[in-house]
Amino acid sequence: MSEQLTLYLHKLSPYSQKIELALVEANAPHRAYQVDIFNKPEWFASKVNPVGKVPAVTYGGPNVDPEDPSPLSAKIAESNVVLEFLADIYPDSGLLPKDPILRAKARFFMDATTKHVEGPFYAFIRGLESYDNTLKGIEFIQGLLEEGRDFAVGDHYTIADACISPHLAGLKIVIETDTGKFPVGMGYKLGEELKGPKFAKFMKYVQGMLDRPSLKQTYDEESVITLFKTRFTERVQ
Amino acid sequence: MSEQLTLYLHKLSPYSQKIELALVEANAPHRAYQVDIFNKPEWFASKVNPVGKVPAVTYGGPNVDPEDPSPLSAKIAESNVVLEFLADIYPDSGLLPKDPILRAKARFFMDATTKHVEGPFYAFIRGLESYDNTLKGIEFIQGLLEEGRDFAVGDHYTIADACISPHLAGLKIVIETDTGKFPVGMGYKLGEELKGPKFAKFMKYVQGMLDRPSLKQTYDEESVITLFKTRFTERVQ
Ligand SMILES: N[C@@H](CCC(=O)N[C@@H](CS)C(=O)NCC(=O)O)C(=O)O
Ligand SMILES: N[C@@H](CCC(=O)N[C@@H](CS)C(=O)NCC(=O)O)C(=O)O
Repeated sequence: MSEQLTLYLHKLSPYSQKIELALVEANAPHRAYQVDIFNKPEWFASKVNPVGKVPAVTYGGPNVDPEDPSPLSAKIAESNVVLEFLADIYPDSGLLPKDPILRAKARFFMDATTKHVEGPFYAFIRGLESYDNTLKGIEFIQGLLEEGRDFAVGDHYTIADACISPHLAGLKIVIETDTGKFPVGMGYKLGEELKGPKFAKFMKYVQGMLDRPSLKQTYDEESVITLFKTRFTERVQ
Repeated sequence: MSEQLTLYLHKLSPYSQKIELALVEANAPHRAYQVDIFNKPEWFASKVNPVGKVPAVTYGGPNVDPEDPSPLSAKIAESNVVLEFLADIYPDSGLLPKDPILRAKARFFMDATTKHVEGPFYAFIRGLESYDNTLKGIEFIQGLLEEGRDFAVGDHYTIADACISPHLAGLKIVIETDTGKFPVGMGYKLGEELKGPKFAKFMKYVQGMLDRPSLKQTYDEESVITLFKTRFTERVQ
């Protein structure tokens, strides 16, 4: 693979971080360009992603200035689609296993992450999702984890791990700082509950993911805490 | 591929039909077992899909009675995950192109179908989604179609086509029979709007998909009309 790959991202976007994680874990050469998503440059929607969201990648075509993307490169958006793409262009990276059954497990895990964590968790921070449903989502994910294994699927870091990790990092902030539009104390309560024996398997997985060098390299916790505090402070009492 | 593959389905389930379509289009040997989803047998959740939904497949293991699935087979659920699995075990079927960029396009189309058609369309039938949003979803999909091509992506039937086709069949019923919990006439109105020049590209694609032998072979329109009329008749005025 020697085609150019440019990742358009925002440093505080969990969806962007999924892609960064996969790129780092696959040791994949790439350029990263930070898009100001609060004040988007005009060329981003017209030349990269019509929907105007990060992450998006350009792949192939000439090596150009990221601010003037070439019509000759492919443009790919939607984090889970980009993750699959990376697994396709790096078939030996382990980003997806070779075995079709394990591949299906990884995809099922990603689907479950999107439905049962990504959706409910950010709604919970916004005060729009119940505590119980948020916990149920976590329980569903725990049910997919295998005792004694470090990864979502098999014995290697896959796009399933990259898909959930940024949300796990956000979860850590919520349970440690109680930041969110939910009633005061509900973030701490969630943390207490997750520390109980019932969620030991899940929390061990979380710790493993948060300890990875790829996570540390692609994540600035202080800035995400500040973002959360700024955006999710008005509380529902 | 000579492993056994058993598809658990319900004949009126659009999610099940996605899988049937892909199997027929790939000419893949399989057994189909109809699950009574209104009165589910106990073994289905305990031995096939804990979530209790169709479609689900068992793959590999001994050739057993579908009502007594073997612990030795892999169990795979979630229609879009199963579609990817079929593309993986039939790499030469064309169910997914070989080119990574086209594969990403197919996956983007599936993601858009799930977000912008599957969700809004069934909510619309239930009287829970606005006319405008439903139409916007269709417009988004049309934007992905290429003029002069018969398929969602490239020159071959892919899992992207299989993913959307059952919903297109349902859309046809709604616009031809006005069946749904939306205000009387709104289904017909949607039909009129879709027949205009603005949606010509989309409607040509719809017609092509509905005309395929695989669609006819896996679909019983009369029964789906009866189901829609039974479930979605109480109208919001
Ligand atoms: N479903 C998308 C979500 C991407 C998304 O929501 N990105 C946010 C940043 S976290 C964004 O770009 N927002 C800017 C906007 O919507 O204008 C994915 O998975 O890639
Ligand atoms: N997201 C699932 C949806 C499957 C689904 O909702 N299946 C329905 C039939 S259309 C079902 O099995 N319902 C029975 C139940 O939920 O108990 C997929 O794509 O496979």
